Amino acid sequence: MSRLLDANAMGVYPIAATPFTEDGEIDWGSVEQMIEFYLRCKVHGLTLLGLMGEAQKLSDSEAAELTRVALRLVAGRVPVIVGVSSPGTANLVALSHIAINAGACGVMIAPLNVLKTEVQVATYFADVIKALGPDVPVCYQDYPQSSQSDISAAGFVKLIDPHDSIVMFKHEDCPGLKKLTAVRKACDGKQHRRVAIFVGNGGLYVPQELHRGADGIRTGFAYPDVLVEIFELFGAGQADAAEDLYDAYLPVLRHEQQPGFGLPVRKEILRRRGAIKCAAVRQPGGRLDADDLAELDRLMRRLEARTHRPAIPQPRRTA
Amino acid sequence: MSRLLDANAMGVYPIAATPFTEDGEIDWGSVEQMIEFYLRCKVHGLTLLGLMGEAQKLSDSEAAELTRVALRLVAGRVPVIVGVSSPGTANLVALSHIAINAGACGVMIAPLNVLKTEVQVATYFADVIKALGPDVPVCYQDYPQSSQSDISAAGFVKLIDPHDSIVMFKHEDCPGLKKLTAVRKACDGKQHRRVAIFVGNGGLYVPQELHRGADGIRTGFAYPDVLVEIFELFGAGQADAAEDLYDAYLPVLRHEQQPGFGLPVRKEILRRRGAIKCAAVRQPGGRLDADDLAELDRLMRRLEARTHRPAIPQPRRTA
Amino acid sequence: MSRLLDANAMGVYPIAATPFTEDGEIDWGSVEQMIEFYLRCKVHGLTLLGLMGEAQKLSDSEAAELTRVALRLVAGRVPVIVGVSSPGTANLVALSHIAINAGACGVMIAPLNVLKTEVQVATYFADVIKALGPDVPVCYQDYPQSSQSDISAAGFVKLIDPHDSIVMFKHEDCPGLKKLTAVRKACDGKQHRRVAIFVGNGGLYVPQELHRGADGIRTGFAYPDVLVEIFELFGAGQADAAEDLYDAYLPVLRHEQQPGFGLPVRKEILRRRGAIKCAAVRQPGGRLDADDLAELDRLMRRLEARTHRPAIPQPRRTA
Amino acid sequence: MSRLLDANAMGVYPIAATPFTEDGEIDWGSVEQMIEFYLRCKVHGLTLLGLMGEAQKLSDSEAAELTRVALRLVAGRVPVIVGVSSPGTANLVALSHIAINAGACGVMIAPLNVLKTEVQVATYFADVIKALGPDVPVCYQDYPQSSQSDISAAGFVKLIDPHDSIVMFKHEDCPGLKKLTAVRKACDGKQHRRVAIFVGNGGLYVPQELHRGADGIRTGFAYPDVLVEIFELFGAGQADAAEDLYDAYLPVLRHEQQPGFGLPVRKEILRRRGAIKCAAVRQPGGRLDADDLAELDRLMRRLEARTHRPAIPQPRRTA
Repeated sequence: MSRLLDANAMGVYPIAATPFTEDGEIDWGSVEQMIEFYLRCKVHGLTLLGLMGEAQKLSDSEAAELTRVALRLVAGRVPVIVGVSSPGTANLVALSHIAINAGACGVMIAPLNVLKTEVQVATYFADVIKALGPDVPVCYQDYPQSSQSDISAAGFVKLIDPHDSIVMFKHEDCPGLKKLTAVRKACDGKQHRRVAIFVGNGGLYVPQELHRGADGIRTGFAYPDVLVEIFELFGAGQADAAEDLYDAYLPVLRHEQQPGFGLPVRKEILRRRGAIKCAAVRQPGGRLDADDLAELDRLMRRLEARTHRPAIPQPRRTA
Repeated sequence: MSRLLDANAMGVYPIAATPFTEDGEIDWGSVEQMIEFYLRCKVHGLTLLGLMGEAQKLSDSEAAELTRVALRLVAGRVPVIVGVSSPGTANLVALSHIAINAGACGVMIAPLNVLKTEVQVATYFADVIKALGPDVPVCYQDYPQSSQSDISAAGFVKLIDPHDSIVMFKHEDCPGLKKLTAVRKACDGKQHRRVAIFVGNGGLYVPQELHRGADGIRTGFAYPDVLVEIFELFGAGQADAAEDLYDAYLPVLRHEQQPGFGLPVRKEILRRRGAIKCAAVRQPGGRLDADDLAELDRLMRRLEARTHRPAIPQPRRTA
Repeated sequence: MSRLLDANAMGVYPIAATPFTEDGEIDWGSVEQMIEFYLRCKVHGLTLLGLMGEAQKLSDSEAAELTRVALRLVAGRVPVIVGVSSPGTANLVALSHIAINAGACGVMIAPLNVLKTEVQVATYFADVIKALGPDVPVCYQDYPQSSQSDISAAGFVKLIDPHDSIVMFKHEDCPGLKKLTAVRKACDGKQHRRVAIFVGNGGLYVPQELHRGADGIRTGFAYPDVLVEIFELFGAGQADAAEDLYDAYLPVLRHEQQPGFGLPVRKEILRRRGAIKCAAVRQPGGRLDADDLAELDRLMRRLEARTHRPAIPQPRRTA
Repeated sequence: MSRLLDANAMGVYPIAATPFTEDGEIDWGSVEQMIEFYLRCKVHGLTLLGLMGEAQKLSDSEAAELTRVALRLVAGRVPVIVGVSSPGTANLVALSHIAINAGACGVMIAPLNVLKTEVQVATYFADVIKALGPDVPVCYQDYPQSSQSDISAAGFVKLIDPHDSIVMFKHEDCPGLKKLTAVRKACDGKQHRRVAIFVGNGGLYVPQELHRGADGIRTGFAYPDVLVEIFELFGAGQADAAEDLYDAYLPVLRHEQQPGFGLPVRKEILRRRGAIKCAAVRQPGGRLDADDLAELDRLMRRLEARTHRPAIPQPRRTA
């Protein structure tokens, strides 16, 4: 079993797509190809069963099988976090144990939409963590645009004090830059223990978030290799070069992050890049029409012109 | 297999609870007892896997097993509808087929919370019904307080024209009385074909809804025998006697219908009435504290005093 | 100027309607008649410019004028609270000062729908109270179904510690009975100073709320005289008689509290009772059609039969 | 009086800020300076009292006065649209008449958050337009992220058929590109009459929207001169040059469009550019701290480096 997630995690942990065939079955044949794509992108970790992975549309057995297959294919080469949010705690716990037993390093949990105050959120996480046991590392996903449940920086900080297993904060509230800074400053290892902060939100604010102290990036952007390059340039002290590269991809990234519409765009780019065989989104889900595809073609032509890199082929390796 | 649901359905089809043990396992031993309780209440039908049944907290295999077990126990004595709403169409279809094959008369489907216009709702139901096949009778659940998806009377009426399998409208929008009337008038068998209209919303407006033409009642109220009696008095032309009986139970009914809080109250009453062995709600879910139980005791004492009927024992038979 | 609101407030402070003519102008001629109606009902106080008063549809000058006129007519006979919630703090403060200068005893403020955490709510109230000055008594309106902003009992209690001017909690969260108890127990004068707790929510849980320690009732129910009678019976130790009376009016009360639909129902009952001349709701707002009126007639006939009191004429005096 | 808005409107109509002093008063002295700034930017029109203008925090008399002052200063040099959305129709109509009488070319109206179906939206607009009279040109603002009211392309198209005064569609749903295309195709002057389509959403998809047939841009981006340049390059057939320029400003534009946070950023840039004297946002509203200002400084330095244009001084004139 790979080592477990802790507060020192850093880097790019993309949210993996789930490949489907045109008729909506999981395309098991693409799973290996996709995993290898991500690993060739030199990602630092992977995330399974996020929204980008259409987790909420899988059956329990599909979710379990995908988790097991993907972890067997990754074979410990990078740490893997599994999204396990569920309206029922028993289901959440069952999937968590499947994931950890298959080699996942931790689980990601969002608060439920019925949790309207921080007291309710705290009670929920206390119950969940009691049911999970203290040894399953947890990433708190703060994405109120989707979860419809909010927490303040102070509320999150209060939450981690009694629960050592919460080792990561997935930041994707918007506007959220001030909250990121507040969590970073409070979890300084003195006032409160450190947690790793990973950012999402489609990657729309990555440079600002890295400047404010984010440790990693977890989003479904179809160029994870570029995110890796940005992250490493930034870490090497070349913040402007990192941001130049980010800005070059920003037009496509911004296009991809449109909630609801972005998923078929991402899967189409992943398909063009050879990561998956078919871009289909499972029902209910969007589909790109001729206008959408022409728009994407144009964005990718412009990307090539600006970056002097091919937009479509295999992931480019950092030097 | 029992006959399928059609637009002539009428009566009381309570939403069955799902009995759990104190540690959150399905209490399979209580399932038969509960089914027999409902049948002794002389209900006209049953509904499985509603919100009241904590469907969203069951695993796929639990939902399938509960459906099969309950239908085997009912053994065709009354028609049974199964709630199959799900974020993924494939899961919805799979459970629907399990239900129909086990003897259910139809399925209940709510629109998803991402469907923000009637065009989106119509597209979703067209896709779902195409995937279900034309032979699975469908009840459209209009409960925007929970589904976060709205439809007008005109939008619903437009939806049924191309889809013969939608035979029932579960009315629980609030305020919704005008909408009920509008659907009733439009689906008169001339302008548009008839659909059965069943009402929910915790039963808070049952007499008004029966006057406005509702055909049936589908809610989790813990006195389904009383709803049956009300329904039959009303049908026998004794509207005032029906409403007198309703009004006598209204203080308890109103207490039960509080969203979130009402479920443990209902399960506690069902327990006291001998329908289930344990009132536990699966996590995450509320629990009654000493104040809540004293409050309920008081409401039930008052109910006995007013109705001259025992509040707690076995369901009372209509004369 | 009448004395200011403090934590000892108790009783029934109905939310006054705003009378309009058929063409949507304020019916100034009805204002006196309506004020006298409420006072004949022996209410303990009044509330102006609530949702029931269609405050959000008045112009600034109408709101100011209505406040001044109503307070002049009340002439200190009962304390008057004025709803001043507004998206802009400057407008909130301006109306508050108008109200206090005209003789109001305090103001009622709900958090804004953009305030998604208790930290944000606390910051907002700190800013508002700083702008208001320390001498304006404030009632915190906790009505998340309308405000879309939530607070826990613990969050409210934390809010009052630094702000002595918050002297009242308007409880109308649902489900909210446990929260009411939690606030009541925490604000016991020892752990935290006492606040008055008034309940709203259309009055749907009044007996339970009185048992749990509510000090008063603030809702738009069209029989404020009956609420006064219930409140006083309860205070006199006759809890069952109080609840019997409440239960007799519950069918109408429940009908009235339907959000959106209930306002024209209430104004129609107030019109029939002689409180206002015209039941019109200002645009945008609902209107009762023939079905709605027949339904209301029936409810009122039944009310008379059950209570042996006239449903329509002048307010009945407590013995 | 300037000519009225019609379906041929095109170009950039920025949403004007409302300048405040540090203590929250309208900075009347800055209004002229700001109007002249926008006109030097060669904008094709202006929009007053949008969300960017903090309209919801103004008093009625401030809104009226600001409208009159701004229109007097513009003096017919460009058409001016005024946002008049309000929970009360009477207030909406009163402000509309003030605006039109002062020389505005039309009004912008969003549906209210209580309107949950297209039937309700249609009824509301019918009532509003009846009250406004047929001669006030109306722009329908489709911004469900803020209004919480949704409409489909088909629903909008159905809305304009009976209401000739609706001449413009303000598109800012997200994801919304498919809807924009659907409205564009349906309102082709044959199936349905043409309407002008202006786009908002902070400008985050402007090039895609222009390709899909948008006629104009209405957003609060602090470089309206650049939007003008982009619009005119695009109109001159230089789509790639237009998009190159857009992409260069995209990092700042994306930073500005963060809901809630973006407004103080925009006002700070406008201040630095000399458009207003003080960047203060009226309460309740955000404030930039040292981290936020350093972040903005960095974004503006990078903007200068990339565009070889000064980020801060007076608006650059198109060649």
